[in-house]
Amino acid sequence: MGTIVDITTSLDGFVAGPNPTLEDPLGEGGERLHEWAVALEAWRERHGMEGGEASADSERLRESVDATGAVVMGRRMFSGGQGPWDADPNADGWWGDDPPFRAPVFIVTSHPRGTVAKEGGTSYTFVTDGVESAVRQAREAAGEKNVGVSGGANVVQQAIKAGLVDELRLHLTPILLGSGTRLLDDLGGVELERTAVIDSPGVTHLTFRVVN
Amino acid sequence: MGTIVDITTSLDGFVAGPNPTLEDPLGEGGERLHEWAVALEAWRERHGMEGGEASADSERLRESVDATGAVVMGRRMFSGGQGPWDADPNADGWWGDDPPFRAPVFIVTSHPRGTVAKEGGTSYTFVTDGVESAVRQAREAAGEKNVGVSGGANVVQQAIKAGLVDELRLHLTPILLGSGTRLLDDLGGVELERTAVIDSPGVTHLTFRVVN
Repeated sequence: MGTIVDITTSLDGFVAGPNPTLEDPLGEGGERLHEWAVALEAWRERHGMEGGEASADSERLRESVDATGAVVMGRRMFSGGQGPWDADPNADGWWGDDPPFRAPVFIVTSHPRGTVAKEGGTSYTFVTDGVESAVRQAREAAGEKNVGVSGGANVVQQAIKAGLVDELRLHLTPILLGSGTRLLDDLGGVELERTAVIDSPGVTHLTFRVVN
Repeated sequence: MGTIVDITTSLDGFVAGPNPTLEDPLGEGGERLHEWAVALEAWRERHGMEGGEASADSERLRESVDATGAVVMGRRMFSGGQGPWDADPNADGWWGDDPPFRAPVFIVTSHPRGTVAKEGGTSYTFVTDGVESAVRQAREAAGEKNVGVSGGANVVQQAIKAGLVDELRLHLTPILLGSGTRLLDDLGGVELERTAVIDSPGVTHLTFRVVN
């Protein structure tokens, strides 16, 4: 029942490429980051699709999502970039009527709004008093399960700096994006201990304990 | 007989911390990057010291340096930061009378100067017509052995962008420096293929083929 950041980055440290748009919320080249995951059976199931690779990575992904009882994210990850949220702060988010989270999601935002229930176990709760409050509320909702801090980079950085994160799971792809949104920015002084390395086809999984 | 970048970075992608000085050429916190290597028997031998760990990492380091027939570096790596070179472009470099390279070193610089011979097989040749020329001269000097592009980050980036590098060997430490000199900057569009992952105590070795 830890609080876990589980995220894919390029080898040069980006979680999204440059110039994100509503059509292309991961920026130029950013979709490539997730090709390894999108190919997995467990990912496809979660997104209402059939087929995919029934590999060790798929099992790990399934275990990881099954062990997650609540999710924290930033308002841009919720809204899919700058677009709809800035235009309409009551817009419904980027993830459709049957979002893949299947758990309570706590969104760090400055715009107050009532909780929204979606299909499949996802609900959206809007938290206006900061990431610490969002993680605390997610912890209560998660019970014996983990809290997943999903992104974007800014919320991840805030959570790590505030000492709220127990474990960092990086999925390192051999992609160079050149520019975009960096995950590990301005985190000097944070101490990590590497606890696992798994070498999968196309991606290297690195797990770190955050020494708080 | 490839051209190889072999370098240690922090998890957030830095090869040196902020505010490098002549006394502290790797910047604040930067010395920590190399603790894993400094502890090795092969590193200590190379630097005229006794003892150290006779580990698998030590053997790998020994093989890597034995397989290197010539070295390319930037003028700041040669001079140990901004200090002596900017003050006196004929200064003798940061690495003493018995440098650890034990091979011909080709220094990318704008300041012409005659070749300098040092003890133990190291010589310094100053190349004023760019990194491509430096790698070409190093290739001739290396014979059947590898060319090592040692740093700093700027020379590494120039060499990768110019399509001169065959292999990138990253030694990833679980350190977060927060700021400093980034290795993989502005390299969008370069294609890599991961060819090896080795999980050592305190460091993860990742090897990539550069797809030119």
